[in-house]
Amino acid sequence: MPIIAQDIYQNLELVRQRSPLVHNITNYVAMNLTANALLAVGASPVMAHAAEEVEDMVNIASALVINIGTLSGHWVEAMFKAAHQAKKRGIPIVYDPVGAGATPYRTRTILELIQAVPPAIVRGNASEIMASAGSHAKTKGVDSAAATENALASARHISEQQDCVVCVSGATDYIIDKTDMALIRNGHALMPKITGLGCTASALCAAFAAVNPDHFAATTAAMAVMGISGEIAAEKSFGPGSFPVIFLDILFHLTGKEIERRLKIS
Amino acid sequence: MPIIAQDIYQNLELVRQRSPLVHNITNYVAMNLTANALLAVGASPVMAHAAEEVEDMVNIASALVINIGTLSGHWVEAMFKAAHQAKKRGIPIVYDPVGAGATPYRTRTILELIQAVPPAIVRGNASEIMASAGSHAKTKGVDSAAATENALASARHISEQQDCVVCVSGATDYIIDKTDMALIRNGHALMPKITGLGCTASALCAAFAAVNPDHFAATTAAMAVMGISGEIAAEKSFGPGSFPVIFLDILFHLTGKEIERRLKIS
Amino acid sequence: MPIIAQDIYQNLELVRQRSPLVHNITNYVAMNLTANALLAVGASPVMAHAAEEVEDMVNIASALVINIGTLSGHWVEAMFKAAHQAKKRGIPIVYDPVGAGATPYRTRTILELIQAVPPAIVRGNASEIMASAGSHAKTKGVDSAAATENALASARHISEQQDCVVCVSGATDYIIDKTDMALIRNGHALMPKITGLGCTASALCAAFAAVNPDHFAATTAAMAVMGISGEIAAEKSFGPGSFPVIFLDILFHLTGKEIERRLKIS
Repeated sequence: MPIIAQDIYQNLELVRQRSPLVHNITNYVAMNLTANALLAVGASPVMAHAAEEVEDMVNIASALVINIGTLSGHWVEAMFKAAHQAKKRGIPIVYDPVGAGATPYRTRTILELIQAVPPAIVRGNASEIMASAGSHAKTKGVDSAAATENALASARHISEQQDCVVCVSGATDYIIDKTDMALIRNGHALMPKITGLGCTASALCAAFAAVNPDHFAATTAAMAVMGISGEIAAEKSFGPGSFPVIFLDILFHLTGKEIERRLKIS
Repeated sequence: MPIIAQDIYQNLELVRQRSPLVHNITNYVAMNLTANALLAVGASPVMAHAAEEVEDMVNIASALVINIGTLSGHWVEAMFKAAHQAKKRGIPIVYDPVGAGATPYRTRTILELIQAVPPAIVRGNASEIMASAGSHAKTKGVDSAAATENALASARHISEQQDCVVCVSGATDYIIDKTDMALIRNGHALMPKITGLGCTASALCAAFAAVNPDHFAATTAAMAVMGISGEIAAEKSFGPGSFPVIFLDILFHLTGKEIERRLKIS
Repeated sequence: MPIIAQDIYQNLELVRQRSPLVHNITNYVAMNLTANALLAVGASPVMAHAAEEVEDMVNIASALVINIGTLSGHWVEAMFKAAHQAKKRGIPIVYDPVGAGATPYRTRTILELIQAVPPAIVRGNASEIMASAGSHAKTKGVDSAAATENALASARHISEQQDCVVCVSGATDYIIDKTDMALIRNGHALMPKITGLGCTASALCAAFAAVNPDHFAATTAAMAVMGISGEIAAEKSFGPGSFPVIFLDILFHLTGKEIERRLKIS
């Protein structure tokens, strides 16, 4: 059964009602926006990265986000500890491979994380997903259609190997698992001009996965809520400064009717 | 003599005139908002967390804030160094036990800090204050009135043991010392939907304590300024995205008349 | 030939067209604003501070910013690694000596950085530039005109020793190299009330230096764009909360006409 606006709104309402605690090990740049977006969507954010406490924090959390956007030695150590504990407890893990492919350290870290602890969801842009599949992404000189094809093949590969959902986000968001694929065409061209929105999308995926064991549906709902809120916010913004301000307001108030009216899914 | 609007405004004016340098060792999520709020209220913020320099920074500061919101080994080491130096110099120290009770690492750290270096002020929500008193806060299943009673008992305990002011913040803010208690009922239900406002309140307490050796009055003034600015901002906001933007504007321009008109103290 | 509005706009257009990747090792407080300002001006920001990857990140970047605003041991180690690699590759390096002079650790770090790897540009306020010249800045009790004279002498000293551009920013921005000096009198008194704007100016200098090998012209253009955008934003703001929101919107849309109409250069 295809996912419709009503399903997405139901997922959103579940997040608002249950207010799941989402434990984030994320980057310095996106932390504030991520925490505020989790609050705006109705979830409870917590940030904790010390090896001394990540397992204890995972023990009271309903989902874990690991984002490698500003990684370093101690943080990576804590990421593995947290991931192992989350797997043990059976709570969903979301990996956000920020900058995978840009440096060997990032690529190696995400590949080792995925191998050591298979996640519920991986979300990244096309080149990050290609790098996370172990492909040697060479996007320069490759036309856009071919790049998308490469990224989708990488996403399918990760999904099959790790039995997880993979989201390749961009102008169109592709949500993929072993048997299904959904496309979300919401969002706005202004969004790549604001830092941390991808990281925020990953955190919303975690919040939705915390309340819905169908992680394909949860990821699709999170990306739709993200895209629709972003679309409305961009229309009301004067530029990339006012966007995040309005985006959080919209996310906080988002109604079923707006989802119904705006959703572009296929 | 009870604290009145005029006293609060006088404290605010002192901060604006003297622009005290407030040294913050705080969490990554709240750093930007905290620095901007300190600037908006008229203080001078500085963030420094390296063991190599915290003592030197304390030496030129008028107050020190220690916030354990995203603690880790090196940071905790620096917190102790800074606290000892601040005590030696006699400048006020504010502890913000973010997430105390959530993990043993946080609880242990705040208990050790309080024991090693008694602060001027501790500010946290009910469960954080209970954890900071060494109580084993069990708020789940306990009704709200009982939880408040527990938190106030914890606050009194810390206050007596350490000869300091304790603020239990929430819909009502309770400011407590060995002999006095003030209640502030300003603020707005939107405020818990924005990350870092509690941390910001703690930083304002430090700015006010830097200019007023009566730390009970300083804490009360800071919490009133926080609550009143938040109340006005919430009325002018469309949601949690526009709130911090308007909050900083309001804080910057706050007048004695607005304090007079809005203050709910008892 | 003196720099005119048209040159500045041309530099801005180059940044927008080429979208240079700017690698930032900067402080926690300013990271988000810096990243968003780089995006708004048309550049591509990346933040990376791990010794494990800074050299690889420098290898794909077009400019490097090193900002010591919240420095610590591991970060300083990475700063040196990144600076050496940037020098090897010949991409411009910008140093922002935040808080130099406030603690010996900061002063020592910036002096060692400048000695070890001469930069393309150093940007700081008067006391930071004096400390970066190895002077023992004693601004207290010194009148403002004398302080500016001291800072300019320090700037000239650094510029000659390191063959680089130095910008002393303030109500008037002074851009200095071995043979030239430009003064920008744009900006607004509200700007020092917002945290991270100086850091943001340094990042813009890097973006402009990435597209213009004439680093004196690039720095002048960046500071003019910063000052003019800030001036317009301040006129449209209600206070320090709305300022950064509007500033990013203005920066994103800044036109040649606005630069022409507003530029105060001499």
